[in-house]
Amino acid sequence: MCRWLAYSGSPVLLEDLLFKPENSLVMQSKHSRLGVEPINGDGFGVGWYGALETPGIYHSIEPAWNDRNLRELSAQASAGRVFAHIRATTGTAVQQTNCHPFRHDRWLWMHNGAIADFSSVKRDLTLAVDAALFPDIEGSTDSEIFFFLALTFGLQADPPSAVARAVALIEEVGRRHGVEQPIQMTVATTDGDTTWAFRYSSEGRSRSLFHSADISTLRLQYPDNDVLQELSDDARLVVSEPLGDLQGAWVEVPESTCLIVHAGQEELREFSPLLVSTPK
Amino acid sequence: MCRWLAYSGSPVLLEDLLFKPENSLVMQSKHSRLGVEPINGDGFGVGWYGALETPGIYHSIEPAWNDRNLRELSAQASAGRVFAHIRATTGTAVQQTNCHPFRHDRWLWMHNGAIADFSSVKRDLTLAVDAALFPDIEGSTDSEIFFFLALTFGLQADPPSAVARAVALIEEVGRRHGVEQPIQMTVATTDGDTTWAFRYSSEGRSRSLFHSADISTLRLQYPDNDVLQELSDDARLVVSEPLGDLQGAWVEVPESTCLIVHAGQEELREFSPLLVSTPK
Amino acid sequence: MCRWLAYSGSPVLLEDLLFKPENSLVMQSKHSRLGVEPINGDGFGVGWYGALETPGIYHSIEPAWNDRNLRELSAQASAGRVFAHIRATTGTAVQQTNCHPFRHDRWLWMHNGAIADFSSVKRDLTLAVDAALFPDIEGSTDSEIFFFLALTFGLQADPPSAVARAVALIEEVGRRHGVEQPIQMTVATTDGDTTWAFRYSSEGRSRSLFHSADISTLRLQYPDNDVLQELSDDARLVVSEPLGDLQGAWVEVPESTCLIVHAGQEELREFSPLLVSTPK
Amino acid sequence: MCRWLAYSGSPVLLEDLLFKPENSLVMQSKHSRLGVEPINGDGFGVGWYGALETPGIYHSIEPAWNDRNLRELSAQASAGRVFAHIRATTGTAVQQTNCHPFRHDRWLWMHNGAIADFSSVKRDLTLAVDAALFPDIEGSTDSEIFFFLALTFGLQADPPSAVARAVALIEEVGRRHGVEQPIQMTVATTDGDTTWAFRYSSEGRSRSLFHSADISTLRLQYPDNDVLQELSDDARLVVSEPLGDLQGAWVEVPESTCLIVHAGQEELREFSPLLVSTPK
Repeated sequence: MCRWLAYSGSPVLLEDLLFKPENSLVMQSKHSRLGVEPINGDGFGVGWYGALETPGIYHSIEPAWNDRNLRELSAQASAGRVFAHIRATTGTAVQQTNCHPFRHDRWLWMHNGAIADFSSVKRDLTLAVDAALFPDIEGSTDSEIFFFLALTFGLQADPPSAVARAVALIEEVGRRHGVEQPIQMTVATTDGDTTWAFRYSSEGRSRSLFHSADISTLRLQYPDNDVLQELSDDARLVVSEPLGDLQGAWVEVPESTCLIVHAGQEELREFSPLLVSTPK
Repeated sequence: MCRWLAYSGSPVLLEDLLFKPENSLVMQSKHSRLGVEPINGDGFGVGWYGALETPGIYHSIEPAWNDRNLRELSAQASAGRVFAHIRATTGTAVQQTNCHPFRHDRWLWMHNGAIADFSSVKRDLTLAVDAALFPDIEGSTDSEIFFFLALTFGLQADPPSAVARAVALIEEVGRRHGVEQPIQMTVATTDGDTTWAFRYSSEGRSRSLFHSADISTLRLQYPDNDVLQELSDDARLVVSEPLGDLQGAWVEVPESTCLIVHAGQEELREFSPLLVSTPK
Repeated sequence: MCRWLAYSGSPVLLEDLLFKPENSLVMQSKHSRLGVEPINGDGFGVGWYGALETPGIYHSIEPAWNDRNLRELSAQASAGRVFAHIRATTGTAVQQTNCHPFRHDRWLWMHNGAIADFSSVKRDLTLAVDAALFPDIEGSTDSEIFFFLALTFGLQADPPSAVARAVALIEEVGRRHGVEQPIQMTVATTDGDTTWAFRYSSEGRSRSLFHSADISTLRLQYPDNDVLQELSDDARLVVSEPLGDLQGAWVEVPESTCLIVHAGQEELREFSPLLVSTPK
Repeated sequence: MCRWLAYSGSPVLLEDLLFKPENSLVMQSKHSRLGVEPINGDGFGVGWYGALETPGIYHSIEPAWNDRNLRELSAQASAGRVFAHIRATTGTAVQQTNCHPFRHDRWLWMHNGAIADFSSVKRDLTLAVDAALFPDIEGSTDSEIFFFLALTFGLQADPPSAVARAVALIEEVGRRHGVEQPIQMTVATTDGDTTWAFRYSSEGRSRSLFHSADISTLRLQYPDNDVLQELSDDARLVVSEPLGDLQGAWVEVPESTCLIVHAGQEELREFSPLLVSTPK
């Protein structure tokens, strides 16, 4: 499986997110605490919103802990919206086009989990992707097909609904192929402004997901913590696993939930698949 | 575009094919004489039939001229059937899963040329691939989809017919999408025993293709040429461009031709697309 | 050999330097017009001064024309001082630690040319590097040893003198080993503020070197050229070969010259090796 | 640190050594049981003696568990002498020239451990390398310098003595620089015929080292074990850690020992550093 983080708030250096925390994402690439597998060494990706509308993407097939270019980039680039992902492949090739986050226009997408028995259902799911979007599929992962299904179902207009429809299709196609638990997922997506994160699995026992607690409260609680003093009030992290052991800093996102982070506010909504008769 | 070679004959060290000739394939990766583009630096691949039924594959995204592992492998491995390919991408990503030759069971496939306007026709062509084969598609190139179409149309039973049907489908789908000249190709495929090579293009002006002349005649003609003395009588090369300037050593394959090389014999057959109403 | 560019002026996006010009550095990586070798596909590097004192470095062993991360980085990062270099190896390994520009503290260094018969003189030159600096040598190139010699001779205090002493040592050691023309070079170095560029060779026929002409004059001359209108008055480029054909835009740097670019002013000084009895 | 294996015996497919055992070297790259660090993901190398005098080398900076070319090569190449190594860097760059085994003519060398405080002693040790060998140093590791010191002290004539001299020099130089425990090592070297393995550390608590027990005895003990039935009587493995849990199959090599494997016989000799006044 994989690990990821999604940051929004005042601009920070990427290295403050990726390298400096005690249990940073790069540290998790070698020694994940909560992952199914402690090592996430099958590629890395970061997407960041800099000066342009379109986010930058850095994808690498080296383990994150060895990548000097990542270290350099992280020391130079700062951004107010950052997605980062470390990959542990469930079988598909280790290549840049299979690294998360995936991008479409202004949108980023990343996924921890899997579409079960993907080789059985891949064809049917691929055919459900909008024909106009089809040529933009570049890699071979379940996660990218999932992204293109969500785009097909209107991700850019209504993310929770589009993801709910994509998940329903994945479950329906999976069950038609005899797969009992077709999907396991935490997903994050953003347009550079709002972040939507989803925790769901067909079996109801989903991968872990956390968001950071209110920074201003934490700041009062830990007056000597430099990191907290520097972050803006609206800074929020959504993560696969906490970046450190600070008491009260992390709030678990419940099962079957969509978390929406916007302007320093979190909103939690119940999430369930939404079956529609005909895609698009 | 790309360059390739297909060897059959007595076992030779790979380096005798890839590095030693005056205009070797590795030399062509930097300075192709007949290619559309002099540089073929977007990946490399070699497939060779060693002791096993299934050929070995070495795929690399480094330019061939820099790849030390290729040089080492070529100095150690010898084989009686060798396919090698240097890639100049027409747009798809440079990654190992996009390197030729592609493999399916005992079969290898490589292609120089392109399916025109591939992004427009990719979806229709992908859907025509047999559902059972679909999950084995690993990369994103036109060449691999072409291979899977040929497999769908019975490559393993009757290669000339399967390729003729695949080409017909590509032309039909292309024209339906307003593409005037849907395909440009030289293709080689083998089961490790017989080699089939095809030269064809919708416009009737195809990429160059040559096969080596009869070795025994050449040997008499050039008694001092060491390379020729060592090769077995049945040794044959099929190549995108000659590996050297030896007079009489290379015979051009005509337009719209299928060349079959087996047991040191060449057979030339006319090749034309074969339209069938329903795939498979 | 190699190709490089050094930019100073108002902050520009890296892609405006590396990708957009007609004969951009990335274009030169495939089709250099003035280089000894048209292809410079053996690695790439860019150093840029962003928000920090220390410049960022991006080194890659993929050909520049294929590197998606370079394209992404170049679209996001802007800087007022940029060094970029494409490599055509003269024999040493293609690895990130052999990519230019090399960095030491705030300083960058890049080189086109070669120390002749490097394997004969490498040991003596390596031993002349200051013992305190020695452990920081990471790669195996002549260019990096040259940098460390210049650092040993006081590059950070007086660049022209330090380079003159390093060149004198290289020539002296080379001649002691029977090398007739020990060095061929264009070199650029910077502390992020001033750029020093050197054109010199033992044989007096050095690789090409140019700097851009005064921008304000060019702007008057070409009122419709958008690129020129956007650049600040103090913007200057020093390059191995012109980035385009704009009449009057490029001034050749004479043989045996040190060019100093600072605050939009060029200064040309004669350059000759400076032999000192004992290093340091 | 690292993990390695050295095989000698009847020719076997590389995959039988690298992939098939329960605790194979590739498995150890992700989950080493006895290593200082469970992950050895910083490069991989294999050297094998095929048809030629000179062994082939495959070096990769991808983690071994992801490397498809390694899997292909291992399925095709068989050899009677194989060295394989997975690397966990102690700081130097992850690049092919830093991957073990290192090669010089017919000789291979690989090392688990470290020269302590290498950056302090690197210059003195590098200067002790024979001037004629110096240009062949390609990487930046302590292990390669150690190899070149052993070559300098006559590895090809008398391996135990050359290694003893090299170790003595490393300890002497280290202590001169205030290093208390200058070396930690298990080392293997071979000329393709005999294998010499060394277990030693300045502190007397060395990394683990094992050799396989007599195959014919094991075969009687485990009549149903297919692997054992196929190996020749003279087959021997020397390894950093056992490749499985077979009772009686592995014999620990004592501290401060040189193990010599030749023609199916093991010889154990005491090993201690051998100080000589002047190198060479």
